[in-house]
Amino acid sequence: MKKRLFTPGPTPVPEHVMLTMAEPIIHHRNPEFNEILTRVNRNLKYLFQTEQPVLTLTSSGTGGVEATFVSLFSSGDTIISVNGGKFGERWVKMPRAFGLNAVEIKLEWGKAPTADQILSELRKHPEAKAVYLTHSETSTGTATDVKTLARVIRENSNALVCVDGITAVGAHELRFDEWGIDACVTGSQKGLMIPPGLAFVALSQRAISAMEHSTLPKFYFDLRKAVKSYEKNDTPFTPAVSLVIGVDAALEMIRAEGIENVWKRHERLATAIRAGVSALGLKLFSNSPSYAVTPVWVPEGVEWKTFNKILKTKYGITIAGGQDDYAGKIFRISHLGYYDEMDMVTMMTALEMTLRESGYKFDAGIGVQAVVKYLQTENGA
Amino acid sequence: MKKRLFTPGPTPVPEHVMLTMAEPIIHHRNPEFNEILTRVNRNLKYLFQTEQPVLTLTSSGTGGVEATFVSLFSSGDTIISVNGGKFGERWVKMPRAFGLNAVEIKLEWGKAPTADQILSELRKHPEAKAVYLTHSETSTGTATDVKTLARVIRENSNALVCVDGITAVGAHELRFDEWGIDACVTGSQKGLMIPPGLAFVALSQRAISAMEHSTLPKFYFDLRKAVKSYEKNDTPFTPAVSLVIGVDAALEMIRAEGIENVWKRHERLATAIRAGVSALGLKLFSNSPSYAVTPVWVPEGVEWKTFNKILKTKYGITIAGGQDDYAGKIFRISHLGYYDEMDMVTMMTALEMTLRESGYKFDAGIGVQAVVKYLQTENGA
Repeated sequence: MKKRLFTPGPTPVPEHVMLTMAEPIIHHRNPEFNEILTRVNRNLKYLFQTEQPVLTLTSSGTGGVEATFVSLFSSGDTIISVNGGKFGERWVKMPRAFGLNAVEIKLEWGKAPTADQILSELRKHPEAKAVYLTHSETSTGTATDVKTLARVIRENSNALVCVDGITAVGAHELRFDEWGIDACVTGSQKGLMIPPGLAFVALSQRAISAMEHSTLPKFYFDLRKAVKSYEKNDTPFTPAVSLVIGVDAALEMIRAEGIENVWKRHERLATAIRAGVSALGLKLFSNSPSYAVTPVWVPEGVEWKTFNKILKTKYGITIAGGQDDYAGKIFRISHLGYYDEMDMVTMMTALEMTLRESGYKFDAGIGVQAVVKYLQTENGA
Repeated sequence: MKKRLFTPGPTPVPEHVMLTMAEPIIHHRNPEFNEILTRVNRNLKYLFQTEQPVLTLTSSGTGGVEATFVSLFSSGDTIISVNGGKFGERWVKMPRAFGLNAVEIKLEWGKAPTADQILSELRKHPEAKAVYLTHSETSTGTATDVKTLARVIRENSNALVCVDGITAVGAHELRFDEWGIDACVTGSQKGLMIPPGLAFVALSQRAISAMEHSTLPKFYFDLRKAVKSYEKNDTPFTPAVSLVIGVDAALEMIRAEGIENVWKRHERLATAIRAGVSALGLKLFSNSPSYAVTPVWVPEGVEWKTFNKILKTKYGITIAGGQDDYAGKIFRISHLGYYDEMDMVTMMTALEMTLRESGYKFDAGIGVQAVVKYLQTENGA
């Protein structure tokens, strides 16, 4: 059976990228690797739309976010953190573990933060050193309007704008410099289309200056060290060499397609899937849908475990379930990374077949038709 | 030109392991991956010769060692750390960065710590919570007698025995349980023969208990979380999936060969290389040679940079140079990981040819002859 992955990380890895990573390993202090890292560093700037350093760390995305907390702040510092799901929740727990005063903006799952909510907390906490936003909250498929909120934060405070871009970078428009972002993190197994194991952290000049005053203890995640090494296209510790080689190949693909086209493709595929889901009478979960992942309510009468088992064992398709309170209640379809129009049609076809076999009633083919119709008519691209 | 890597990490990756890692990526919360991690966890116990948990972290080996510091200790705790080279030096700097009182045993490069040196510091610091040893100091190719020192530490103190086994695990005999080790760390790109990106940490019951009292701030490297996930054959954060799949294949190779045979092979290849080096009239650097890497003094009259350039560009061979004070003065040949007898003959042949072209005088073939003679006669294996 052909197997197909529709999870929001790991996302599918392009075949030629997998094979590039399978080439004989090279040493990370070699001129050959230095050349690769130089190109990766240049192309990461393009990905983040920045002239600032984008650092490569060997860790999951969570490690990348931890690096920003321990490198930018000191014990007792106040930061404002938006918790709109599983990951936002982590960006409240994590700074607290390091002795920061994390002011939480807790949202109902599926809701995005508003400018008023951010402003109100900034007014209550003028001492706040940063605001942490989750660009695309993977657990809820909800996108935050980072462009607007970054402007609001910049205009009304000196707080750094820190963005978890883990499932957003490469899926949503992101202009690090233009929008005034200070720190943005992503992971390798998301829009970058390679296996997990690397995190990337872009830092503004304000963020780099803030590091000089940070007193939190750190070593592996000390971004001052990483910036120093970065200037020589090196890393402070042995990097995940094969994954860096994969990122190099993946970034070349993104450059060739053009970052604006990559963003547009994600929007288009997400919208197509949603057209199909709606045509089937299913309900979307989020009021501010992300282009990375679409969460859908499991329809009444359908049992999630049975549904997921059919999808996986009969159709070879892996999607993500709901987390925490929403386990068994929602499912999440990814369109993040290496996907095209045909993949969406495939996904919708399997979804229809599985829904039918799970006892859900609808006109056969109506979801697929809606996907295909959207792709043919709604967008001239 | 065929390229061959003789560096002590990254080490060569077996071809079928590279191709296994190039298979389509799977999701880390899948039953399929759980099965792989279950097998990896079982085989890691075999590698470390332990019944205790061996945790898998997504980071370099340095991250793995950091995890032991932040998870086992609290600010102000005293630890004794042996600094006999570049890595030992790091295990002094790192705990200090986290506010530990690191008592340094500073050794001349190329020397191993003695029981008396350890005992003397333990007597001066009865409050010491741990002693950190580097089993194989990669920068100097020097092996520490962990078996004896662990016994001495256990018999004379309550200090935890913590071992940097990064280039030792899989090369040197190591019996975690029998020897009474409390924490031992290795990396994926060493004896485990896969690309860098994973660290492994074995913990004794004493170490696991110590974690309950540790108050250092931590999140990503919190081994309490890792132990909890480990019990379900899971990881707290997205692991480097493709590398775990590689480790699975590599551990199956180690099991098939037998760990004692793997250790013996390393000793045998190291000794063969040394026989060749000595026959050429070159001088070995260490007085307690590691089986992972052999450092050799660059002979008088030979210029390291020219020598290394010929070796790399004409013979396609990458070795490691000296670090810090020994840059340009020594070179290091690795026999760590996926090497066999023929590889040692190849290495010695290229070494001879390069030495000749660098102006060094010797009877052509005398080094290779010594390698081959040792392999044929000195050991019946």
